[in-house]
Amino acid sequence: MNKRRIGLIRVVSYRGESRASLHGRLLERLYPELEVVTRCIPDQPKGIYDAETEALAVPKIISLGERMCREDRIEALIVSCAADPGVEGLRERVRLPVIGAGSSVACLALAFSDRVATMGITEGTPARMKALLGPCLVAEARPTGVTNTFELNTGAGKASAFAALRGLVAKGARVVALACTGFATLGVADEMTKQAGIPVLDPVVAAGLFAYAYIER
Amino acid sequence: MNKRRIGLIRVVSYRGESRASLHGRLLERLYPELEVVTRCIPDQPKGIYDAETEALAVPKIISLGERMCREDRIEALIVSCAADPGVEGLRERVRLPVIGAGSSVACLALAFSDRVATMGITEGTPARMKALLGPCLVAEARPTGVTNTFELNTGAGKASAFAALRGLVAKGARVVALACTGFATLGVADEMTKQAGIPVLDPVVAAGLFAYAYIER
Repeated sequence: MNKRRIGLIRVVSYRGESRASLHGRLLERLYPELEVVTRCIPDQPKGIYDAETEALAVPKIISLGERMCREDRIEALIVSCAADPGVEGLRERVRLPVIGAGSSVACLALAFSDRVATMGITEGTPARMKALLGPCLVAEARPTGVTNTFELNTGAGKASAFAALRGLVAKGARVVALACTGFATLGVADEMTKQAGIPVLDPVVAAGLFAYAYIER
Repeated sequence: MNKRRIGLIRVVSYRGESRASLHGRLLERLYPELEVVTRCIPDQPKGIYDAETEALAVPKIISLGERMCREDRIEALIVSCAADPGVEGLRERVRLPVIGAGSSVACLALAFSDRVATMGITEGTPARMKALLGPCLVAEARPTGVTNTFELNTGAGKASAFAALRGLVAKGARVVALACTGFATLGVADEMTKQAGIPVLDPVVAAGLFAYAYIER
């Protein structure tokens, strides 16, 4: 099979190749047509978890994205973060399609229902997701005790996320958009879907779907 | 390959099987995992092209959709019309995911850009698409002289659509959402993408993408 190459930006500065490329490998498994080149922004070992760390990351994401579009022979670029940091700026600067994980999962959710809930690790739903969901956003949750992607990836963090999920279903949500790409690292969307009885959508998988849709046209 | 079966409702009462199943066959070609069962609503040979014909169609779509969910052993249901007629009503009544072609193409467009244009055959963008696109809807067009799906499917109708496309690009659109499933019948989205230099998205293909995304989870 002739693989089609896309780029993926991690907004956490992982040191190890295997942790860094986890989202890319997930997409290569789901969409065998894709080959994913992963690069991390520098000097943010804890990633993006508030307005300050987001502001710090944006210029790094734009600079890295521009370089990847020039040098990595990619056909589309994913920014693997639910806040879509740098996506708007990159779209002004590069010709390739730039796909944000946050807007992707919001768009995927809206295709299935007009009663969408979000679950993330920041205070409230990321702004771009919130704007896209508009009046279709019926509930929001953050797992108790989780404030960054590493706290999510613990036994207590995971249990807390499943507890929060039950609350969203009770509030009338018909689909849940996970608003942190740390959920992809955990790989819990399918298990959550089974438990909740409604689709629980992963932002990295959603971004991969739209990259695949663009490439396959 | 173990095919996954989905349903597709045509809102035009075609007499011939081959015209009726054209959208379904298109999706089976694009997504070989899918098998598409097509059914047409009765007594609307000209389809939906204004508020009156839409109001007439909605109860027929709901009744047909409920029957298909009961009898056709499908896993998801597409309503193949850009106005999403009956989608809201069906979602209240059936447990399967109900996917509208109009909301699908709007959601797909939003994953790529916040400057979306629409091109359809009705006065203005269908209400559900317009609500989803919100401030991201930057331009709308209707091909001159085209008022229903059959007029689109002529030499003059097609030429008129390509002329309208140039106007949308000039107005700053970065992606075009085709707002009539008659464009799928014409099969012009790829040719339009080449000519416009920006993605031109077909509503039937978009609905198929989301059905595929749901099934493959």
